[in-house]
Amino acid sequence: MRKLLLQLDTSANPSVFDRVVAYDGGADEIMSCSGVTEDTVRDHVHGAIFTRGPKDLHNTAVFIGGTDMAAGERLLKVVRETFFGPMRVSVMLDSNGSNTTAVAAVVKLQQAGDVRSRRAVVTAATGPVGMRAAGLLALAGANVTVTSRRAHGSAKLAADIKERFSGVTVDPVAMSDASQAGAVLEGCEFLLSAGGFGVRLVPREAWAKRAGLIAAADVNAVPPLGVEGIDAMDNGADRDGIKTYGALGIGGLKMKIHKACIAKLFERNDLVLDAESILEVARTLI
Amino acid sequence: MRKLLLQLDTSANPSVFDRVVAYDGGADEIMSCSGVTEDTVRDHVHGAIFTRGPKDLHNTAVFIGGTDMAAGERLLKVVRETFFGPMRVSVMLDSNGSNTTAVAAVVKLQQAGDVRSRRAVVTAATGPVGMRAAGLLALAGANVTVTSRRAHGSAKLAADIKERFSGVTVDPVAMSDASQAGAVLEGCEFLLSAGGFGVRLVPREAWAKRAGLIAAADVNAVPPLGVEGIDAMDNGADRDGIKTYGALGIGGLKMKIHKACIAKLFERNDLVLDAESILEVARTLI
Amino acid sequence: MRKLLLQLDTSANPSVFDRVVAYDGGADEIMSCSGVTEDTVRDHVHGAIFTRGPKDLHNTAVFIGGTDMAAGERLLKVVRETFFGPMRVSVMLDSNGSNTTAVAAVVKLQQAGDVRSRRAVVTAATGPVGMRAAGLLALAGANVTVTSRRAHGSAKLAADIKERFSGVTVDPVAMSDASQAGAVLEGCEFLLSAGGFGVRLVPREAWAKRAGLIAAADVNAVPPLGVEGIDAMDNGADRDGIKTYGALGIGGLKMKIHKACIAKLFERNDLVLDAESILEVARTLI
Repeated sequence: MRKLLLQLDTSANPSVFDRVVAYDGGADEIMSCSGVTEDTVRDHVHGAIFTRGPKDLHNTAVFIGGTDMAAGERLLKVVRETFFGPMRVSVMLDSNGSNTTAVAAVVKLQQAGDVRSRRAVVTAATGPVGMRAAGLLALAGANVTVTSRRAHGSAKLAADIKERFSGVTVDPVAMSDASQAGAVLEGCEFLLSAGGFGVRLVPREAWAKRAGLIAAADVNAVPPLGVEGIDAMDNGADRDGIKTYGALGIGGLKMKIHKACIAKLFERNDLVLDAESILEVARTLI
Repeated sequence: MRKLLLQLDTSANPSVFDRVVAYDGGADEIMSCSGVTEDTVRDHVHGAIFTRGPKDLHNTAVFIGGTDMAAGERLLKVVRETFFGPMRVSVMLDSNGSNTTAVAAVVKLQQAGDVRSRRAVVTAATGPVGMRAAGLLALAGANVTVTSRRAHGSAKLAADIKERFSGVTVDPVAMSDASQAGAVLEGCEFLLSAGGFGVRLVPREAWAKRAGLIAAADVNAVPPLGVEGIDAMDNGADRDGIKTYGALGIGGLKMKIHKACIAKLFERNDLVLDAESILEVARTLI
Repeated sequence: MRKLLLQLDTSANPSVFDRVVAYDGGADEIMSCSGVTEDTVRDHVHGAIFTRGPKDLHNTAVFIGGTDMAAGERLLKVVRETFFGPMRVSVMLDSNGSNTTAVAAVVKLQQAGDVRSRRAVVTAATGPVGMRAAGLLALAGANVTVTSRRAHGSAKLAADIKERFSGVTVDPVAMSDASQAGAVLEGCEFLLSAGGFGVRLVPREAWAKRAGLIAAADVNAVPPLGVEGIDAMDNGADRDGIKTYGALGIGGLKMKIHKACIAKLFERNDLVLDAESILEVARTLI
């Protein structure tokens, strides 16, 4: 019985990236649906759960993707509500690669040192990668500060993270531009820059040679990078005693995690792979 | 040479249900097209018949699906008109699963007893499942009564069935609500309730313990079921001497039929699987 | 590692024809995208080049198709611009089958005789098949005359061919209707009729028994054919000393070329299969 992956994509065309990784992760065939919304997703899920007997349903799985993480989260909710009793299949949420990227970055930082009770700063954490990485770091015991451009945004972000990640608390800070990075990074031991393509968030003088800083990571691959002085290829480079991780260095692990998660989906029929559970899968890889 | 199934779906996304069953039925690869109309279908069919030599064309086949059976029937007509000489592939019509469901229900009733010259009642036969089941029962020699809510509808229905099924005659009866079921079922020996989800058509007192009634089946899986007192899991249960079949009991056979039909498509290049021929395939399974 | 073909189709549904040939040509899986435009293609290409390491990228390839060759050419341009360094995959352009058809027709004519320094006439060369065939014949050393209905169109066509095919020169001639074919074919040694379905361009008296004419080919399969007296099945038939090739005779080679090109795509990650390079692949087949 072939392993069938149902790709539920919220965008107009099903992601090519997700399809290649799904094949390489072990899906035998991919059933792609595009432009999927909360209104149309139930029929697709019924097609997944009503076609094979419960003992075979681990050979069918769902992958939720697309460029919009909020849309993906809404789909995941409806997908889970559509399951009942043994009529369910494993499901993974990774819109825009945000979950696997966040997990890869967090794993890298944790490889550099124990984050428990240490101060971690996640810049531009309003995006899906930053938001998830901040929540995962907080769950791991770090004292997390999240930044966004406006004070209002950072407060809402902290509330969103609290709601999404089992009530963890993070400190919101407004950082309207890069000139404030130095002040924000006071006492920072782990830095993750989670901003978008081509936006410099942290100038060199704000982090390089900073006493106490253990590791700095940046998920932006498009110059200028988010953290000045990190190279996109960095993968644990030692820069004046600080371990650094660039987008491509993190990306290798991200791909490995994504593929491992696809394989995992087909081991049982009741797995839900979202940020926390993807982190668990990642831990088995290192 | 791989077995390629061309899925022509009249809905906006290609049915996931049909794709899973097609893989499990033996298609190696599925080429899905969605939103297919009579105007666009010829190009797709040309792609199927002009790419492999006549002796290899049994490795390509067409499946017509989607939620709208009338749209599927129109596609089937154009698909068949596009074929010529040896340039043809086998094709199956099963929009909304109506053909395979109707066939499964008819097979179940026939397993309970010989329908020839016996009175069968199909309620809510205006839907595609009921319409096909009524025609198949009539072809098998039953004296079939079909009901619809309005007198006008049931007369048109009888005419439609006559046109679709080689001139068979069925008796149309209006049954505006469940209170009339008792009268309609006078003398009934086989009952099939073909109504939609969650609509009760036949109350318990109208059928239970009815003298002469041999079997009762219901294709509605969503409570309240169409026939009060039948359980969706019933698969030949004996209820006071009457054999009963619920939607899930019928559903198991329906899946088996659907898969067998997919396999059959690839045995030759000139098969047309519609209600009657699907029934023939089903008979080879029991 | 499976061979994945990314089908970028500019039409509303991905071509079934191209999918069947891709499977038969050796693609393990096809990732179809439809309605692809210059604005949306980059994301798809990123999905192809950022998912496997450079040493594995020969297992991913791109096929550009759809009914509109001009749209396909625009996509090819953006696809190539999206590649960088080793981050690239092989790509083939064959919108509407125009490249493989043109190449097959040219190969057939060349099999009939050496085209170098000989006069070739391509009628209705404004279409994508004729335009490419004319360019390829000119590159091969023939003295090519191209016809279109209006003088303005033929002049523009000659300029377009010059720009597309490394500066080759072809002679533009207006041929407003079939009555002028005799005059246009004065001195013609190779004739290719590249007009659309069901349009007669060359009456029998204009070519049959013409002294010096070595071969005549016609890519139109729908009667009336473009060249009166050629049979669609002709594949080197001798008609009064002139070798003739009909659409189906050419079509067999076209299919072989198309499949061989698909296989070729997966041998390396930097191949670009457009008219000239498809002709090179074709030469290895004969």
